[in-house]
Amino acid sequence: MGKQAIGVVGLAVMGRNLALNIESRGHAVSVFNRTREKTDELIAEFPDRKLVPTYTLEEFVASLEKPRRILMMVKAGEGTDATIASLRPLLEKGDILIDGGNTHFTDTIRRNQELAKSGLHFIGTGVSGGEEGALKGPSIMPGGQREAYDLVAPILTEIAAKAPDGEPCVAYMGPDGAGHFVKMVHNGIEYGDMQLIAESYAVLKQVVGLSNEELGAVYTEWNKGELDSYLIEITSKIFDKKDDETGKDLVDVIMDRAAQKGTGKWTSQNALDLGAPLPLITEAVFARVLSSLKDQRVAASKVLEGPAAKPFSGDRAAFIEAVRRALYFSKVISYAQGFAQLRAASDEYKWDLDYGTIAKIFRAGCIIRARFLQKITDAYTKDKQIANLLLDPYFRDIAANYQQALRDVVIAATTAGVPVPAFSSAIAYFDGYRSARLPANLVQAQRDFFGAHTFERLDKPGSFHANWS
Amino acid sequence: MGKQAIGVVGLAVMGRNLALNIESRGHAVSVFNRTREKTDELIAEFPDRKLVPTYTLEEFVASLEKPRRILMMVKAGEGTDATIASLRPLLEKGDILIDGGNTHFTDTIRRNQELAKSGLHFIGTGVSGGEEGALKGPSIMPGGQREAYDLVAPILTEIAAKAPDGEPCVAYMGPDGAGHFVKMVHNGIEYGDMQLIAESYAVLKQVVGLSNEELGAVYTEWNKGELDSYLIEITSKIFDKKDDETGKDLVDVIMDRAAQKGTGKWTSQNALDLGAPLPLITEAVFARVLSSLKDQRVAASKVLEGPAAKPFSGDRAAFIEAVRRALYFSKVISYAQGFAQLRAASDEYKWDLDYGTIAKIFRAGCIIRARFLQKITDAYTKDKQIANLLLDPYFRDIAANYQQALRDVVIAATTAGVPVPAFSSAIAYFDGYRSARLPANLVQAQRDFFGAHTFERLDKPGSFHANWS
Repeated sequence: MGKQAIGVVGLAVMGRNLALNIESRGHAVSVFNRTREKTDELIAEFPDRKLVPTYTLEEFVASLEKPRRILMMVKAGEGTDATIASLRPLLEKGDILIDGGNTHFTDTIRRNQELAKSGLHFIGTGVSGGEEGALKGPSIMPGGQREAYDLVAPILTEIAAKAPDGEPCVAYMGPDGAGHFVKMVHNGIEYGDMQLIAESYAVLKQVVGLSNEELGAVYTEWNKGELDSYLIEITSKIFDKKDDETGKDLVDVIMDRAAQKGTGKWTSQNALDLGAPLPLITEAVFARVLSSLKDQRVAASKVLEGPAAKPFSGDRAAFIEAVRRALYFSKVISYAQGFAQLRAASDEYKWDLDYGTIAKIFRAGCIIRARFLQKITDAYTKDKQIANLLLDPYFRDIAANYQQALRDVVIAATTAGVPVPAFSSAIAYFDGYRSARLPANLVQAQRDFFGAHTFERLDKPGSFHANWS
Repeated sequence: MGKQAIGVVGLAVMGRNLALNIESRGHAVSVFNRTREKTDELIAEFPDRKLVPTYTLEEFVASLEKPRRILMMVKAGEGTDATIASLRPLLEKGDILIDGGNTHFTDTIRRNQELAKSGLHFIGTGVSGGEEGALKGPSIMPGGQREAYDLVAPILTEIAAKAPDGEPCVAYMGPDGAGHFVKMVHNGIEYGDMQLIAESYAVLKQVVGLSNEELGAVYTEWNKGELDSYLIEITSKIFDKKDDETGKDLVDVIMDRAAQKGTGKWTSQNALDLGAPLPLITEAVFARVLSSLKDQRVAASKVLEGPAAKPFSGDRAAFIEAVRRALYFSKVISYAQGFAQLRAASDEYKWDLDYGTIAKIFRAGCIIRARFLQKITDAYTKDKQIANLLLDPYFRDIAANYQQALRDVVIAATTAGVPVPAFSSAIAYFDGYRSARLPANLVQAQRDFFGAHTFERLDKPGSFHANWS
């Protein structure tokens, strides 16, 4: 019996779908699961596919060509450590472990370094696109030893999503934790995108008074233009969906308590560590947290009054267009922050990330896939070292032409008492970033006053302390 | 020769000033420093004070009454661990180590638990008030074993700042890391306060066009009313200060790059971990980070245009009053978030924090001391379990009467292109918190659409998944 070029450990939905995806490209795949039921179920469901079941790790490892390529799709954290510990004694120098789980990049750095001591390669890879992406073509963000990546690149390239121009959505991100880091920032950006769309919905519904049907039409229309993206597409469909039980619009039946799995939080915490301003995504994370306090909000709504509701009196079409522009410009600002974080991380962890390529592999397969990502790739193609995307001519034009719309929407929402934390944070960041002078001189004066923390001067270098009293 | 009731390890400015403070209350104090120069300097400078120099840790420990009370004022992190490791073999059951450094509360939890195994007590205490506070009376926030606290309480009470009503600003916060946690949140709140004042300055200067002299007068006036606080007081003085070298107003000479020591960052990262919404303080932390990117901002200011500058055309006095109200209400919102974080932490780490007492010990000695803290104590006295300070009648009235001013200031700043991330975040949080319904239903619909993450319904309990396609 021949040996397989790759094996998958962990046959929950992501692992099993990736195994089926690999098999569909013509590769036999060894599969293993900690409990044999999942293995048997998979084989029973797909008896004609070239899936090779194994029931011990020894059997699994023995079934693989050398150097062995093992894709682990297990529970991140202890699950990953336990799997590595079980596999390690069975592996040989040059074998390649690939962690496709939802792993914090610092764990990946640690594991990569530890395994390297035994001559084992370790790739941590982001896999985005959910169950369906795993099966049909995800966006793949691998990091680790370059020579190990080259040995798995052919298979990853086959199974990856294809961008509209046919390019596969996979590329080598960088050493050790670079792949999982990029995936983390992808998810943070996803939080920002979703919150911005939610705020556009709130404004259109509460300020303009649009019905769900009208909302569906608006997002359908927006999806034809520069906002064209997977999230806008599904948003338009959500407003069309009826509840099977009550016949009501399903969106009105769904509880307004947003859950999260923690990657948005990681992104914000890392941005704080790096000293990379990421206020928009962080507001999005906190907005989810605030939404989860439903009982408190309901109680508070009875005692904390806001502005009296007023019927919309402006030009509807013009205001809807303003919301579209506000959404697009805020999205630009959010990505500018996210990519600035990538840059700060690349410097801090010495990864030499290729920002243009990262935007490229987001173009298909993943949740944030969008037409606009090409503009980011274009910007970095023109200037690989651009400090902030807002400085690129295309995005500069968006800023010039759309900032008034964003101001108008923030003003309308603030007037009406509709919370728009991400829109507000977007314009505040934009105005801060383009301010040659910020009031931080006062902050430094205060710090020197109460703590002798010293200050710099505008007119000469050095650090100074004033005798304030 | 008699033995001393307390000793201080680490004679940098905070340690030395605390030793002098303790001595000034009539106690002889053993002192030790890793390098003997600092010890000799201190003794030479204060030959008549009851400071007992020691030059080995053995000598230091032997000079103390049992159970020994040792205040460590060393560099947080490795310095603390090294000091503990050196002291540990010299100590006996029941001895009390007190860490007064700037320690992350998780380190304090770890050290408390480790030392408890040897029967040693460990108190982690926040000490706020800077050099001057240490010498004359800081605000002190101790956490650790209750019985150990009781043995050091008399001395801590003597050296603590006294509130206007004469109460000492020290109290037992709770077990293990509670004291350092409260200090961390204190510092986060301080970041928020300082950013809010900086934004009020930016608006008054850039929207209204106030001169430094006028600004000094405004803050002096504000300090007479409900904003009465140490930070407003020093702000008023800052605008009066001339630069010795150039004769210009010093505030205009100071570089607008705000530095930080990391406790604001810790507060935000912890709020993200706890799932406690802390957007305002987090915006303040990111505002400092953005200010530090001075070169980028100067470059961006040349290519990213904002609204054309316009002379102020409204009623100056009325707008200045609106800014005052915006500042006060935003401060209320920031403290509501910070105290909600304390509550979440108390639940998570099982500390049983007493929020009213915490506000009480902030009333003097520390940087955020302010008249308004009494209102927080009053609120928790009325209802110890209130979910959010905004629900208390006094703060509810502030919300009702001042929210329009906050909206007006955010609108004016957004119109003029003046960044007000903390003011904007304040009103967005307020409007979110008082919203019975947020657009998070759309976020949950999206999550269920792309990832089968399920949703809850408004009309019945359970978790549901829709067939979206």
